[in-house]
Parts: sequence; C-alpha cells; structure tokens
Amino acid sequence: MSAPSLLQVGVVGLGRMGRRHADNLATLVPGAALCAVCSPVAAELDWARQHYPEARQYQDYEALLAHPGLQAVFLVTPTALHAGQIITALRAGKHVFCEKPLSLELEDCLRVQTEAARHPQLKVMTGFVRRFDASYQDARRKIDEGLIGAPFMVYSQTCDAYDPDGFFVRFAPTSGGLFLDCSVHDIDLARWLLGEVRAVRVIASGVRAIHHDLAPYQDVDNGLAICEFEGGRLASFYASRTMAHGHETMTEVTGTRGRISVGANPHLNRVTIADTHGVRSESTPSFIERFSEAFVTEARHFVDAVRFDRPLALSLGDAAEATRIGMAMRKSLLEQQPVSL
Amino acid sequence: MSAPSLLQVGVVGLGRMGRRHADNLATLVPGAALCAVCSPVAAELDWARQHYPEARQYQDYEALLAHPGLQAVFLVTPTALHAGQIITALRAGKHVFCEKPLSLELEDCLRVQTEAARHPQLKVMTGFVRRFDASYQDARRKIDEGLIGAPFMVYSQTCDAYDPDGFFVRFAPTSGGLFLDCSVHDIDLARWLLGEVRAVRVIASGVRAIHHDLAPYQDVDNGLAICEFEGGRLASFYASRTMAHGHETMTEVTGTRGRISVGANPHLNRVTIADTHGVRSESTPSFIERFSEAFVTEARHFVDAVRFDRPLALSLGDAAEATRIGMAMRKSLLEQQPVSL
Amino acid sequence: MSAPSLLQVGVVGLGRMGRRHADNLATLVPGAALCAVCSPVAAELDWARQHYPEARQYQDYEALLAHPGLQAVFLVTPTALHAGQIITALRAGKHVFCEKPLSLELEDCLRVQTEAARHPQLKVMTGFVRRFDASYQDARRKIDEGLIGAPFMVYSQTCDAYDPDGFFVRFAPTSGGLFLDCSVHDIDLARWLLGEVRAVRVIASGVRAIHHDLAPYQDVDNGLAICEFEGGRLASFYASRTMAHGHETMTEVTGTRGRISVGANPHLNRVTIADTHGVRSESTPSFIERFSEAFVTEARHFVDAVRFDRPLALSLGDAAEATRIGMAMRKSLLEQQPVSL
Amino acid sequence: MSAPSLLQVGVVGLGRMGRRHADNLATLVPGAALCAVCSPVAAELDWARQHYPEARQYQDYEALLAHPGLQAVFLVTPTALHAGQIITALRAGKHVFCEKPLSLELEDCLRVQTEAARHPQLKVMTGFVRRFDASYQDARRKIDEGLIGAPFMVYSQTCDAYDPDGFFVRFAPTSGGLFLDCSVHDIDLARWLLGEVRAVRVIASGVRAIHHDLAPYQDVDNGLAICEFEGGRLASFYASRTMAHGHETMTEVTGTRGRISVGANPHLNRVTIADTHGVRSESTPSFIERFSEAFVTEARHFVDAVRFDRPLALSLGDAAEATRIGMAMRKSLLEQQPVSL
Repeated sequence: MSAPSLLQVGVVGLGRMGRRHADNLATLVPGAALCAVCSPVAAELDWARQHYPEARQYQDYEALLAHPGLQAVFLVTPTALHAGQIITALRAGKHVFCEKPLSLELEDCLRVQTEAARHPQLKVMTGFVRRFDASYQDARRKIDEGLIGAPFMVYSQTCDAYDPDGFFVRFAPTSGGLFLDCSVHDIDLARWLLGEVRAVRVIASGVRAIHHDLAPYQDVDNGLAICEFEGGRLASFYASRTMAHGHETMTEVTGTRGRISVGANPHLNRVTIADTHGVRSESTPSFIERFSEAFVTEARHFVDAVRFDRPLALSLGDAAEATRIGMAMRKSLLEQQPVSL
Repeated sequence: MSAPSLLQVGVVGLGRMGRRHADNLATLVPGAALCAVCSPVAAELDWARQHYPEARQYQDYEALLAHPGLQAVFLVTPTALHAGQIITALRAGKHVFCEKPLSLELEDCLRVQTEAARHPQLKVMTGFVRRFDASYQDARRKIDEGLIGAPFMVYSQTCDAYDPDGFFVRFAPTSGGLFLDCSVHDIDLARWLLGEVRAVRVIASGVRAIHHDLAPYQDVDNGLAICEFEGGRLASFYASRTMAHGHETMTEVTGTRGRISVGANPHLNRVTIADTHGVRSESTPSFIERFSEAFVTEARHFVDAVRFDRPLALSLGDAAEATRIGMAMRKSLLEQQPVSL
Repeated sequence: MSAPSLLQVGVVGLGRMGRRHADNLATLVPGAALCAVCSPVAAELDWARQHYPEARQYQDYEALLAHPGLQAVFLVTPTALHAGQIITALRAGKHVFCEKPLSLELEDCLRVQTEAARHPQLKVMTGFVRRFDASYQDARRKIDEGLIGAPFMVYSQTCDAYDPDGFFVRFAPTSGGLFLDCSVHDIDLARWLLGEVRAVRVIASGVRAIHHDLAPYQDVDNGLAICEFEGGRLASFYASRTMAHGHETMTEVTGTRGRISVGANPHLNRVTIADTHGVRSESTPSFIERFSEAFVTEARHFVDAVRFDRPLALSLGDAAEATRIGMAMRKSLLEQQPVSL
Repeated sequence: MSAPSLLQVGVVGLGRMGRRHADNLATLVPGAALCAVCSPVAAELDWARQHYPEARQYQDYEALLAHPGLQAVFLVTPTALHAGQIITALRAGKHVFCEKPLSLELEDCLRVQTEAARHPQLKVMTGFVRRFDASYQDARRKIDEGLIGAPFMVYSQTCDAYDPDGFFVRFAPTSGGLFLDCSVHDIDLARWLLGEVRAVRVIASGVRAIHHDLAPYQDVDNGLAICEFEGGRLASFYASRTMAHGHETMTEVTGTRGRISVGANPHLNRVTIADTHGVRSESTPSFIERFSEAFVTEARHFVDAVRFDRPLALSLGDAAEATRIGMAMRKSLLEQQPVSL
C-alpha cells in the first residue's frame, strides 16, 4: 500500500499565527506541501517569498482557491471573515482548517454547518489547539480510563501575560471580548473533558483591573464565569489579560475519585533557579510557546484526516457550541444576569 | 514591669475541636491556664479529668461561668448555641472566643454585636483560624507591602477529603450548608486580603457529586460561587466534600503586578516519594493537620489580646459580614438567582 | 496514676541556640520547668532575667549544677567544652542534653561514653535535631514500612545561606571544619535511615568558592564526600556555606522499590508568588526556621524520656560514630586520599 | 541567496535509536533527505523498506558509503565499531554523526581525531544529545549571562528506570560499564557547564542493589563519582539502573550567586493527578521520551552545520575527554583508589 501523495495546502493570512502554521506545514507536517499562501499585506507576502519560495503567493483569496492542485486551506484570518471564507472554500471543493473562533455570530456557525453538510467528502475543522496538546490528551485518556471516577466539574483558565503595548485592546472592537477570545478554548475543553454535555445556564462577571480603556468596548480584562451543564455538571472559568508572570493556561477536572490538572505550574521548560528571589521557574511567555507542539500535532491530525479520510477529532458542532456558550457569557456580563441556553 | 498573671480560661464543648483547644491552652499557650471545662457529655468530661485533672469539670454552662476566677471562655459548641452563650458570657463579665461560624442567623450576629458594644472592656473573637496561619499572614504582609500591586481578585477553596462515614451529612441539618460551613472561611479570607471591601452581589451553584443523600437538606457536596465587591473587585469560591487526596485549602490573590497563592499543593510535610505512582507528596488529611499551628497562634493572639489589652485581629463585624455573604450564597444556590447584598 | 512532676531543667549557654532551647523549655515543653540558666556573658543573663525571671541566673557552671532541685542540663556551649561539662554533670547526678557535635575528638566521645556507662540511671543525648523533624520521622516510618524496599543509598546535603558577615569564618578555628560542623547531621541521618550500618571508608573533596579567607584553617566552603558502609551501602554528602537562596537541608534515600526525599524544595511556608521573576517560593533563611518545630519535639522527647524513664531515640554511640565519620572526611579532605575506618 | 540542496544522509544501524534518527531525518529535519540505510539485520531493513521506501537499503557499510550522492552518515552502531566506521567514512569523504560514546578506548578516540584532522572540510560530531535539549541550552545561556555568578560545582545524574528484562545486563559486556554508558553524558554536561575545565582527579564507588548478575562484568547498577577540575571546580555524579519511577536526568550547577537545576522533577508532561496516592506527576519512562525533541534539534544542528559550513557545538576533543574521564571513573571503581588524570 503506497501512502497518498502530499496534501497541497494553502495558508490564508500570514500574521503571527499564519506564519506559524505555514512554518509547521512546510517543515514539520510530513504529509503536507505548502503550495500557496495568501495575504493582502505586502510585507507578509515578502516573508513568504523569502522563506517558502516554492509556495505561490496570492493577494486575493479567490485566486488562491483557483491555484492548480490546491486541496486544502488553512484560514488564519480575522474572525469576521471566517464564515464567508469557509463557505467559499467548500464550494470550491477545498478542505478547510479554520482558526478559532469559528465566528462571533451563531448564524454564521449555522450557515457554515449547513454548507459543510452539503460536502460530506470535505473536512472542516476549527483550531481548538489545546485538544491536541500532549498533556491535555493524556488527561482525557486518563479520564476515559476511569482514573478519577466520574468527572463532574471543570475549572479552566486562560491567563495571558500583561502586554504593555495593549495589542489586544486595539483588537477589542472585533475580538468578541474576553470570553469569546480567550475562554472559548476553556469552554471547548470543559465540554470535551466532561463528555460533550449540554450547557443549560451561564453567569459571568468581570473587572477592568488595568486596561480601563476597554470601557468603550464593554469588555473586561479579567473575567469569571460559571457554566451549568445537564446532569448536574459544572464548569468554572477565569480569563485574564493582566498576568505578571506570563501565560498560564490551566485546567482542572474533578471526579468522584480524583482530580487531574493540566498546567498547574506554567513552567517554560525544566529549568529551576535558586537565587535571591527564592526557588523559581520561568513561565511560558505566551500561548505560542505553550502550545508550539500542539499546533504541529493539530496540523498533522487535520492533514492526515484528509489524506487517509479519517474522522476529525472535533466537529463544526463543537465549534458552534463553544461560540454559543461564549456569547451567553458575554451577554451575562453585559446584562448582569444569568443567561439560560 | 511584671507580666500579667495567667489568663484563667474555660473551654466549653469537648468534641474534636474542643479537645484541640483545651490541649493548646493547657500546654502551648504560655499566658493561659485551663481552669475549667464544660460538656454535657460524660465521656468528654472523662477525657478532661484524665488529661487535665487541674481543670474543674462542669456539665452546666451557667455553673462554669460561675467558676471562681474564670476570666474567659472558649466556645466550641454547636453553632445554634453560639449567640446565646456569647451573650450570657458577656453579661457574666467574661471574654469570649467562639468557634466559627458565629451564627447561621444574621439577627443573632446583630444581637451579639449589640451586647458586645455594652461591654467594651471585654474581648470577643470568632475563630477564623486561617488568618493566623503563618502562610496566610505572610501573604497578607506581602500584599500590604505592595508585592502584587493592587489586589483585585481572590480565588479561594475549601476542599475536604471524602469521608465515607458521611459525618458531615449527619451534620447537614444544622451546619447551614456547604457555603456557611466551609466557604465562610474563604469569604473571610477574601475580605481580609482584598482590604475589607463591601460585597454587593453573589451568585452560587452546586452539585451533589457523591452525597446524593444531601438532597433532603437542599445542600450540595460541591459548590461554586462568585462574589462581587464594591470598587470592581471579585472573588470566586469553591467548596467540596469529595476530594480523594485529602484536605486542600487554597487561596490565590491576584493583583495588578503579580499573584500570591497559599496552599497550591496541600503537602502534608516536606516528604516527596518517587515510586511506581510517579513523583508524589501526601496531602493533609484534614483541616486539623493543615491548621494545627494556626490554632495555637490564634489562641495565643486572643489570650495575649486579653492579657495585654491589645486590639483583636478580627471583629464581630467581620464575623457578621462573612455570615451575611455566606447566607446570600446559600440563598442564591436555592433560588438559582444572583442575590444582591 | 499521676504524672511525674515537672522536670527541673537548667540551660547552659545563652547564645542564639541556647535562648531557643530556653524559650522552648519554658513555654512549649509541658513536662519541663526552666529553673536555672548559666552563662558567663552578662548580656545573656540580662536577657534571661527579663524573659524568665523565675529561672535563677548563674555565671558559673558548677554553681548551676548545685542549684536545688536541678535534674537536667541542656548544654548549648562551645563544642570544646562539651565532654568535660557532660562528665561533670553526670557526676553531679544530672541528666544531660548536649548540642551537636558531641566533640571534635574521638577520645572525648569515649570518655563521655565511659562515664555515662557508670550512671545508667541518667539520660544523655546529643542534639541531632533532624531525627525529630516531622518529615524525617515520616520518611523513616515509611522506610520501616517497606515503602521503598531495601534502602541502599543516601544523598544528604546541608547548605547554608551565604552570610556576608562571615560569622562561620570567625568560628572556623573551633568548628572542626565544614564536615564536622554541617555534614555531621547528614552523617547521622544516613546511618539512621540506612539502618545503623557501619562505615568502612570515606573520601572527601572541597573548594573555597567565596570564602577564600578559610585557607588558613584548611577549611572549604563547599564540600563533597562519599561514605561506603558495610553491606554495599553508600552515602553521598554535600555541604555548603554559600547558597544564594537560603538554607537547604535535603536528604534522599533510595531503595530497591522507590526513593524518599525530604526537603526537595526548601520552601519557607505554603506561599507561592507569581510575578516577573516567574513562579517562586521563598526559602527557609536558616536551619533555625527550618527546624523550629523539631527543636521542640526534640526537647519534649528528652524531657519525657527522663520523666517516664523511656529509651532515648539516639545514643552516645550514635554521636560518637557521626564524629568518627566526620573526622575521617576532614582527614580525607586534607590528605586527598580515601580514609578507611 | 538560495538555500543549499538537501543533505543526503544515510543511517547506519536501525535499532531503537537508529530508527529514531531515521524518523527524525526523514520527517523533522527540513534540510536532510534520508537517502540510504544500512543494517545487517533483515528485520531492520524490512522496517526501513516499509516506512522509507525512498531510502535505499544496504546490508553492507562499504556499499552504503558508495551510495551515489551520499554526503553524510549517522552511525548508530555498537560502540566497538564506531572508530573504524568513522575513519572509513571520513576516507570516503563523508560527514559523520556518531552516537555516544565515541569509543571505550582512548586510542580509538585519538585515531579518530587524527584522521578527522586530515579532513578539515568534513564535519564529525558525537551525539551528546543533552547539549541540544532546550532546558539545558537555557541553563547554559543563563550561566553565560552571569545569572548564578561564577559556576564552581556541578551535580549531575542519569537514573534509568528499573528494567525487569535486564536489557542493559546483556549489554554489560560491551557497554563499558555504568560510568561510560550513562555518566559519560553527565561528564560532558559538567565540562560544558563549568566552562570546558580540565579534569585532574576522579574517585568512584558503587553498589549492585538489584542486578547482582552484573558481578561477572565488575559492573554496578548504582554508582557515585567525584571529579576534581583545575581551578578548584568540582563535579559529582550519580548513575543508576534501578529507579522505580522512571528515567530521571537531573543536573544542578551551583555558582557564587545562585544555582540552576535542570530536571528537578522528571515529569512526563504538564499533568498532575490528585488521588489516594497524593498529589503526583508521572515521570518520563526513558531517555527517549525525555530527549525526543533534543534528538531533533541535534540532527538539525548537525545537518545545518554541514549545509551552511557552520561550526559544530561540540568537538571530537569533547568526546575524547568525556571518554577519558569516564574510563578513569571505571578504573577508580575497580581499584578502589582515586585516579589522577
């Protein structure tokens, strides 16, 4: 049996994450060939030309979709474009990997799901990268094996290092706010680790601890939320933009016979320092360093799922559900009331 | 200057915690003399007779209050008795240390505060023991010194080891429920560490993960709550009766320039084991082991405050406020709505 | 059965450690009464007069031994005085607790042992305080229970915080050097945890990393040693005077089915800080903070052993053996050769 | 500037480590092409045929060296063959990567060095993989930046999980013994982290704790060694074959202003479990999992050094020096005497 030929992939959007995906596809995903890239930004295309001259550069998305032999696209574009770009790609017969979140509008999620249902031979996946992290996968495996009995509660947090440049503040008008931008990962993890249970009610609260300039966007820089699921399961979330020590993604799953934590200490590596500051470890500066391997695993999973026609680890329904819960959190934050789902 | 003579103390209630207080007062609190004990339970008085024959035994509380020379009482009795016993003691001219919670009724708290105001020369303190723990004191000191900038959020949990005997289930009819029994400590810590801010709203949720027999008492064995304070500060609480690994009290205070955690790993001591289970530490089995030193510090603080007429570290107002917030959490749990304070 | 009356104890030497023992005996050891103290230093006697006026002050050791009712002495004096003072005390019919090391001369150890054998009704114990630390006791218990199979190797270190004042350098002429001053604890632990095996050979090496002024005393500020025991057991030691982060006593016992470590992280308490230095814990500044509870347990053990005529946890033979091995290490360091025992 | 074409590499030896190198070169080293493999074992060639059909299979080493276009070989063969195979490859004009240890004979090291000097255009590197581990690289960088002041002492250990199958016992006749097989890594790290200082004396000791069948080979399953370097620097080593919890490579570098540790807890990943065994993390089962990324980094370093004619991170002199020190340790173990270098 000979292996299928390399999957011809185009990367759309070459910002920080787009370049990361391009690098991974070009050098670390054995089954993929980076055949094309697309960006409206000249400097980004220059970067691609220099690093991956074999990948054809496009300024226009439609033109990229017409690239000869192109089989799949990686959409690393602004969230507002996702739904439209996915639908266009599907109609052009391309498999689609799309960065999270799928959309900030539930109707978009539904439109995408409807279109995808018309192309059952095409794979569509949203990038909930944490599911592909080796530690999260180990946690899920142990839960499936019964190590902690019946899981009934998840605590999950996404805490970013304080960025004095306030990048995310400029991004606030289109990010969907703290819960849709950050907690959407934790929501997906909670559903995945509790067994795809259905959310019934959320409540959220938050503060502007440092970034008072978020007020015009009705956003917060630190937010808490509780989500109640069917069957008496619970999740609790925390998201922050103001950590002093680095990026800290942490998740705890509590069951009737034990608890599993992922990321209880956000150490950058295996180095420990003992000096006048005490005994200490440096933390991962951002999610990029924390999940660098998981991005590779995710891309391999998607590429191999396409090449060998295997099922994807997560569905468009998962992405829509995370969006639905995240939007309810935002609504709860704004209205200061629980929101039933 | 000669030191004042030993404070003559009577311990009322000789259950597990009462005996612990008696032991501490008799052997580890230099300024105190255990001169009397009181219990309606014969076996408990037998224990006292055997261990502290010099302490006069009483079955009746009024009789103990009349013990010659008695200056202070430690009330380690059922919560429902606290308010009445405190008031009686104050009227008898005794200083009072009372185990937490002060009461399950706000009116009781007010009655006690009113009576105490009539006896300004008498000290009254509720046993929020965690404030006396060396690690919590260190955390508070560091916050006061500005180590983490402006603190704006607290996460605090009280998680007890699963008890197959279900002691606390039998206790459920009178315990006030999970939030008033366990989280009341966390509530007090949050107020203390955030700077005595005023709570304005709480929301709570919970599950019965193992102890389904709590249903008749409308109690849960795992509960979550969010508390909003004035000035945009937040606290998040978790309490559990079902931990597999032991008792885990943990508190995080997040500020604008850092975070301080107390109890991130509930290790029993400094022993680490590396064997087929991995690299591991055993956990504190219960709050008794976790706070054994803090109970001594607490008793010393109270005894010295009386002997040297120093201010107490916490007031009846603190105890009333913790009760008020805990009761609101219970109400929110039952009504499934936020409760404004 | 009535408990024996309080043991009348005199503390001899009121430097830092002497005051610590006096404090413990006066306030934390229920079975003891601090009836007398002795020091040739006026300021030290002043301290005693102020804090423990009920304890009679003596400048002269012989006078203290004649104190009416005195039953036991705690010797916290310069090492060179230990042997003579113990023998004098024994001849005066007093029980003796003596700080480590017993002596820097093996003949002294033998003289003390010989004299003690003439007074079998008197208790004599050297202060190997670590045996009384709760974590070390837990480790020993777990080893006895077979948790790690057959223990065959110990690694133990005593690392002190760098002291810019160089106190220990001034102490170097009489300290016996790094191995007899610091490692003697580790040696005793290794023997205790491996089952009182007999040492057959040692080899040592060392450097002067910072304290080059130790050269005249042929001492080092960082030293390594290997000790071989009968039956194919091994111990490895490290002692240092130059730690930046604090005092770190750490011991690992490796067995055929696991490893137990005590003190793998020298955290001061349960506080963890996350800030721009990373995630960190502060370390115990010195052995005083690290072993504060163990000093109390040790004193209680000794006092109760006397009062109830119970066996002591360690013998003069243990102290002599630790001295013998420590001296061999020093010899090996100086001669740059293995030393057989 | 166009990048050089892919380096044509042949892998020689397809045991566990050979397959690992083949996998890495074929899929994770962008600059390399796996064009040929060599093994005398039919099953190993079958594996290669199945996984990398594009790589030509050879049974004979000389034949592989004659493969058209071959530029470099990876030697993953028995240690006894290394020197001869390196020399043959150099004479055939090939760059050489050779697994550690370079040889068990110093003369072999010298022969290789001499031959290599005749081919200055060819790169030769031994696989001291730990130098390429991200944590070790971070440690070295921090030391270079002065974080711990002047480093003066290294403790380094290589502890393998107990293997009931006793693979390494069968390997004992040709492994060179514990120190040359395991500690050779630690020796190289010590030299690298202390600044390539020159060793002057070693002393070693060891026990057979479990594998008593090592006696015929005069080998031990747990060994300790001390190495003295010029300039008053020290290193201490521990190697073991009998760990219950997994593989634990750990290194500490102590300097005048702090200490850096790598691998203080050999956690497999970021998962922590809290259950009846306490709070625990699973350990890396073997060096394969611990250093999986470092093997890739190492291969990339070598391949890029060849392609871009950059200096190698380590020299044949480094490999020879590690062998020299490791052999002295073995000699010291056998003769029970210090060995001067």
